[in-house]
Amino acid sequence: MLIREVRVTPVAFRDPPLLNAAGVHEPWALRTIVEVVTDEGLTGLGETYGDLPHLSMVREAARLLIGLDVYHHNAVYAAVAASVGADVVTDHHGLTGATTLEKTVDRVFSPFEVACLDIKGKAAGRPVADLLGGKVRDAVPYSAYLFYKWAGHPGAEPDSFGAAPDAAGLVEQARLLVGEYGFRSIKLKGGVRPPEEEIEATLALREAFPGHPLRLDPNAAWSVETSVKVGRALEGVLEYLEDPTPGIEGMASVARRVPMPLATNMCVVTPEHLPPAVRQEAIGVLLLDHHYWGGLLRSSHVATLCSTFGIGLSMHSNSHLGVSLAAMTHLAAALPAVTHACDTHTPWQAGQDVVAPGALRFVDGAVPVPTGPGLGVELDRDALAVMNEHYETCGIRSRDDTAYMKTVDPSFSARGPRW
Amino acid sequence: MLIREVRVTPVAFRDPPLLNAAGVHEPWALRTIVEVVTDEGLTGLGETYGDLPHLSMVREAARLLIGLDVYHHNAVYAAVAASVGADVVTDHHGLTGATTLEKTVDRVFSPFEVACLDIKGKAAGRPVADLLGGKVRDAVPYSAYLFYKWAGHPGAEPDSFGAAPDAAGLVEQARLLVGEYGFRSIKLKGGVRPPEEEIEATLALREAFPGHPLRLDPNAAWSVETSVKVGRALEGVLEYLEDPTPGIEGMASVARRVPMPLATNMCVVTPEHLPPAVRQEAIGVLLLDHHYWGGLLRSSHVATLCSTFGIGLSMHSNSHLGVSLAAMTHLAAALPAVTHACDTHTPWQAGQDVVAPGALRFVDGAVPVPTGPGLGVELDRDALAVMNEHYETCGIRSRDDTAYMKTVDPSFSARGPRW
Repeated sequence: MLIREVRVTPVAFRDPPLLNAAGVHEPWALRTIVEVVTDEGLTGLGETYGDLPHLSMVREAARLLIGLDVYHHNAVYAAVAASVGADVVTDHHGLTGATTLEKTVDRVFSPFEVACLDIKGKAAGRPVADLLGGKVRDAVPYSAYLFYKWAGHPGAEPDSFGAAPDAAGLVEQARLLVGEYGFRSIKLKGGVRPPEEEIEATLALREAFPGHPLRLDPNAAWSVETSVKVGRALEGVLEYLEDPTPGIEGMASVARRVPMPLATNMCVVTPEHLPPAVRQEAIGVLLLDHHYWGGLLRSSHVATLCSTFGIGLSMHSNSHLGVSLAAMTHLAAALPAVTHACDTHTPWQAGQDVVAPGALRFVDGAVPVPTGPGLGVELDRDALAVMNEHYETCGIRSRDDTAYMKTVDPSFSARGPRW
Repeated sequence: MLIREVRVTPVAFRDPPLLNAAGVHEPWALRTIVEVVTDEGLTGLGETYGDLPHLSMVREAARLLIGLDVYHHNAVYAAVAASVGADVVTDHHGLTGATTLEKTVDRVFSPFEVACLDIKGKAAGRPVADLLGGKVRDAVPYSAYLFYKWAGHPGAEPDSFGAAPDAAGLVEQARLLVGEYGFRSIKLKGGVRPPEEEIEATLALREAFPGHPLRLDPNAAWSVETSVKVGRALEGVLEYLEDPTPGIEGMASVARRVPMPLATNMCVVTPEHLPPAVRQEAIGVLLLDHHYWGGLLRSSHVATLCSTFGIGLSMHSNSHLGVSLAAMTHLAAALPAVTHACDTHTPWQAGQDVVAPGALRFVDGAVPVPTGPGLGVELDRDALAVMNEHYETCGIRSRDDTAYMKTVDPSFSARGPRW
């Protein structure tokens, strides 16, 4: 089952103006769709980031995979590592934490690994969850992912989600998402308004949704002292507080002084971060993300590690399409270690997708595991072509929430911690 | 691919009088061969311990597996856990460390998991190594496993291996094993003679085999102080010192004061041991054993964990047959994290086996990964029947090296640390 061809297609889809500590989502979100084709004619799908430097690495790596066996993950990984080389910028910190060489290799490897699993599942007539040990749940619960939000992009019509400038707007947004998708957990992206306002918004959500577990994620916009103040103010309200402050040491300082567990997708994002985080007891929940933890199998290993060290597990999300939603769902379905509803940006896509409708849906806030072979989703080639055309014409080549925010507010700075 | 039938067959094979800290190997070693048969008629093999309490648990669990899918490891594991229940004696410490509930479930689950992988490999036409990520090495290096040894069992003829009462005898034994199998690493089972003699034996091996990495394993027969003395005396001679003293704390005390890494298959034998061992920096090498780490997939997760925490990896062995050798070889072949030659008792079987000849062989001390589908080995049903008959008639139902030793030396005590 040898790889005969790899197709790499960047796509862009409309994204609402969602606010975060780094700025605001641009009008177009980028992703890359990977198709791996075997000599027997089976095709597997993967999805990854669409930023140009990453896309270039994915394209480079793809060329080295021709002739490799889809069963030989170790060989595919070695080829990706050789392709990425050692010339990786390792000091950039974005919303998913530090970039290291290993994380970069894991990130480039991930869509190919998912595609290989998709192929192996198709060949065996089994869903990918079965290649990961089999489902321990029939549907994967996701959380309503709330954002402070403008009514629409500057100069454009308001979008269908409406504005959410404050607590009342967020409660309304939550009603919309919970009403439509049935979510049973709620996450608020913070780091946007002063902490007092975000506490107020969280308490308003608690009042409006007394039975929904809540999380707050300011993307490390706070100092240790501010994090401790917020954490104490929200005692009994949050199931976890996500990345209140930067770095493992900072998180550990906060963890010792607040009543709820801390979660992260920023200070622990690659294997080398795990030993210091464990040693310092910095985190109580890891937000796993197969896009940068090296695909589904490596993510399942990390899940076992977390479980062994008493660390809970949820999943992180960036703006994504259905190939990723399917992969995340198969993974979470097969991991006994997942302890919390996972994050997804799916509602913000407003139906835009590269996968054909029908395979993925939300029932009571959870996505039933697709039952078809492999990932259980198929490409909608017309949609892929349209989104690729959007990519070609949208003018965005790398996500930059900060620069976009500055076009509206020239005084904006993403430097943190802000409060 | 549903489980239609599970056959559980205890076997016994002749074992030479190999000495260790607990006593001496009895004339018969026990194992259990598991055959899982699917509704499509595919058969998968597993091998595990043959002691009666364990055999009973394996038989009980086997009945609960009928109708489960071989792809659904999580469901098979849950069924085994339900079967084992909570009534496990958790305080027994043997040569593979403490018994805990989780370790017991992992131990009972293991042969079924291996059999399921064998079936999935056969169904896909792929070797088991391919189900674990694919080979990173074509052959798995094993070590020559030396024992202090009597010439033969009391009252019986001397066996073909000869006596090894001292350094000279061990060097001779090493020449025999290295000559026949080509081993490139040497392990000495210690804890038998006073430490000064075992140091002398190790130095004699170093002189006779200057290029072979050496290990010494006294099975926790030494105090911390004795361990430190031996470790310092063998600086530059041992690649690692294995289980010199009992317990994670004891090992950590030794580790801080000796120049070589410590290895274990006694103080870290189940997931709950990993956090304290990591925290106390007690070990430098884990001797993985899929027989009690819950099969091959769970072992591969533990391997990743070790790698993440900078812990090296080798493999532990009890007396075993070819099904286990095949499983160990597929696992080690697919784990980049394996850093040292693995242990095996294979030479001491002197050709006795339940698998048909041809699939497993040693070349330069390494076993080439079987290339057939699944484990790549087939049962020799005549041999299985003969060994099962040996089991029925040999009179041994649980391994007890200490009681057997006492029949020869009534004053013997396995209580440790002895020195």
